[in-house]
Amino acid sequence: MRTQVGILGAGPAGLMLSLLLAQRGVESVVLEARSRQAIEQTIRAGVLEQGTADLMRELGVHRRMEKLGEEHEGIEFRFRGRGRRIPLKELTGKCVTLYAQHEVIKDLVAARLAQGGEILFSVQDVSLEAIDTERPRIRFRRDPDAPFELLECDFIAGCDGFHGPSRAAIPESARQEFVKTYPMGWLGILTQAPPSSRELIYSNSDRGFALVSTRSPEIQRMYLQVDADDDIRNWSDDRIWEELRLRLATEDGWEPIEGPILQKSIVQMRSFVCAPMQYGRLYLTGDAAHIVPPTGAKGLNLAVSDARVLAEAIARYYRDGSDHLLQRYSAICLRRVWKAERFSYFMTQMLHRFSEHSPFEREIQLAELDYITSSRHGLATIAENYVGLPIEWDT
Amino acid sequence: MRTQVGILGAGPAGLMLSLLLAQRGVESVVLEARSRQAIEQTIRAGVLEQGTADLMRELGVHRRMEKLGEEHEGIEFRFRGRGRRIPLKELTGKCVTLYAQHEVIKDLVAARLAQGGEILFSVQDVSLEAIDTERPRIRFRRDPDAPFELLECDFIAGCDGFHGPSRAAIPESARQEFVKTYPMGWLGILTQAPPSSRELIYSNSDRGFALVSTRSPEIQRMYLQVDADDDIRNWSDDRIWEELRLRLATEDGWEPIEGPILQKSIVQMRSFVCAPMQYGRLYLTGDAAHIVPPTGAKGLNLAVSDARVLAEAIARYYRDGSDHLLQRYSAICLRRVWKAERFSYFMTQMLHRFSEHSPFEREIQLAELDYITSSRHGLATIAENYVGLPIEWDT
Repeated sequence: MRTQVGILGAGPAGLMLSLLLAQRGVESVVLEARSRQAIEQTIRAGVLEQGTADLMRELGVHRRMEKLGEEHEGIEFRFRGRGRRIPLKELTGKCVTLYAQHEVIKDLVAARLAQGGEILFSVQDVSLEAIDTERPRIRFRRDPDAPFELLECDFIAGCDGFHGPSRAAIPESARQEFVKTYPMGWLGILTQAPPSSRELIYSNSDRGFALVSTRSPEIQRMYLQVDADDDIRNWSDDRIWEELRLRLATEDGWEPIEGPILQKSIVQMRSFVCAPMQYGRLYLTGDAAHIVPPTGAKGLNLAVSDARVLAEAIARYYRDGSDHLLQRYSAICLRRVWKAERFSYFMTQMLHRFSEHSPFEREIQLAELDYITSSRHGLATIAENYVGLPIEWDT
Repeated sequence: MRTQVGILGAGPAGLMLSLLLAQRGVESVVLEARSRQAIEQTIRAGVLEQGTADLMRELGVHRRMEKLGEEHEGIEFRFRGRGRRIPLKELTGKCVTLYAQHEVIKDLVAARLAQGGEILFSVQDVSLEAIDTERPRIRFRRDPDAPFELLECDFIAGCDGFHGPSRAAIPESARQEFVKTYPMGWLGILTQAPPSSRELIYSNSDRGFALVSTRSPEIQRMYLQVDADDDIRNWSDDRIWEELRLRLATEDGWEPIEGPILQKSIVQMRSFVCAPMQYGRLYLTGDAAHIVPPTGAKGLNLAVSDARVLAEAIARYYRDGSDHLLQRYSAICLRRVWKAERFSYFMTQMLHRFSEHSPFEREIQLAELDYITSSRHGLATIAENYVGLPIEWDT
């Protein structure tokens, strides 16, 4: 089997890349370790930057997003019992779209299959070969008993997430990894209730962080900061609601609208960057190369912007025979990645309670929130990062 | 002896307060523990916010400042071997004025004495009495052998710096202190050389922080980050210049202009806030209530804005018989103080090397510098803090 670009992973990065390459006349094959049903049903939150939503429109995969998703023109920071709004649209001319990641996946899979694109689901025992040559190969089999096959490519895109085999295929001596773990996790719930708020609420209370998000008119998402090693069994539904009420309380008596809790789980918070994001003919995208804590809502969007840069670089190679942009792939992506890592780190530091913080550091955190929300420029720094910074092609 | 406002300390806060009160028809007496010569000759750096320089003009004490001081319309952040300018004036319409603190002191002392104001220098054994009554008193003597005298006042302004007796006169149970010490100091030099740069350069290099400042056409100030417990005897002139060259180096070969080093010393870095800043009829201003690390150039300016709030509050009391503003003195000052503490902390965190930083945190620091200097809003957040945030009277 032979193709121009072998894409490992049918997540947002891999699927978006296959569509962008097709748009540019470049062939690809996507290999995915999980089944179609599994990737389409793993529930994941999703805040799409303006650029991500625009790209969905440009690729013609926007119909369900415009029906089911919701444009948000602002978010709220809440602290000291008061809310202050960050008017995203007014400050930047841009919005975010709340549309869950697994819905994005469904749209991209459907679109790619509809154009005759090849996505092999549930592939097994994937490995990368000869990535430092001009004929890299992906070795895999279609099921555990099937014979091994080889997909010969000009390029391999490693879009296979944090635990996929791509990153590990780069010799350790040729990459550097940057890691940060946080002393907290997020306890997330899905509840069957109408929205408590029209816009997202990020609350820094003395009891810790809480986030009110939305998903649909009937189902809402909310989050609570918990200890990193906390156990979901410690959190009865009553305790969760009590804590959400306390952490979100305002002077004028705001309370979340409660409903049955359909799902609850704790996720860890971590930052990770692998640099460079390329080696030979292998290019990493999305979670394979970087992880952000969810506080900045950047994970999915970074995956999509990596795919945009890579698609353009590969298309130019075939069109002009120049690998100039391919050589700069990692530098262009990492500049935006590090800015998003910074924003996610900053939001995490500003919005959570840290047991190691001194009273001085706690006041600094509140002064930061006060400054940022009382200065038009401060508000604009949050807004422009939240709706998405541009790709700096001339990096 | 009797006056309306007894002012402890002839630093920028106390002197400015006495002039502002006189302007509003309120009497005061200033008591200073050091001699006039000592306070006028202790060399201190000075970056005046636009509001501070404007106040000098409003009070008619601006002639020497306009002759000897220098308006700066921008500063430079330098990292990864490149400089990026923060165009203060273009972004905010405001400037800073480089004019040393001891020159400000000379101007204020001369102006206050010229209007017949009373400043007692070299007073000894100062203590505060009955500060929680309507007739607070300052006990002192004019020299070590003189008898004790009492200055009876309506109000006492504690402008006597971090080590003065005012703050300690507030019962410990009635105040909270917030402290942060930093793991570094600044080694500062005065050198006899022409300016190396027209504007200040704040450099974050792999070897640590360096700052190029100016003082006059012939004398310059420069600073190097050193360990908090370092000894000035470890720093030969050659080593200082070598380190300045390395930390300020750019891709295009920039070097500081060297000259004889006239003076060198190491200062510690600390943040401190006492809250509230008032108790009974005692009001703290400036360093008596708060300390900032020098990275944000805020110390002198905070002292001046405290004096502005206090003068206005006292004047209204005599004019309208209302203590409404006096009661809110601390809240109004602390809001601006905490924002300046935040800015100073942020600048310190962003510009210095910290040995406890992981490689991830080092990259975040550089991404912060990259973001801030490549976003107009990011630049404006630095600029508006550097030239001085407004006093928020309606806090």
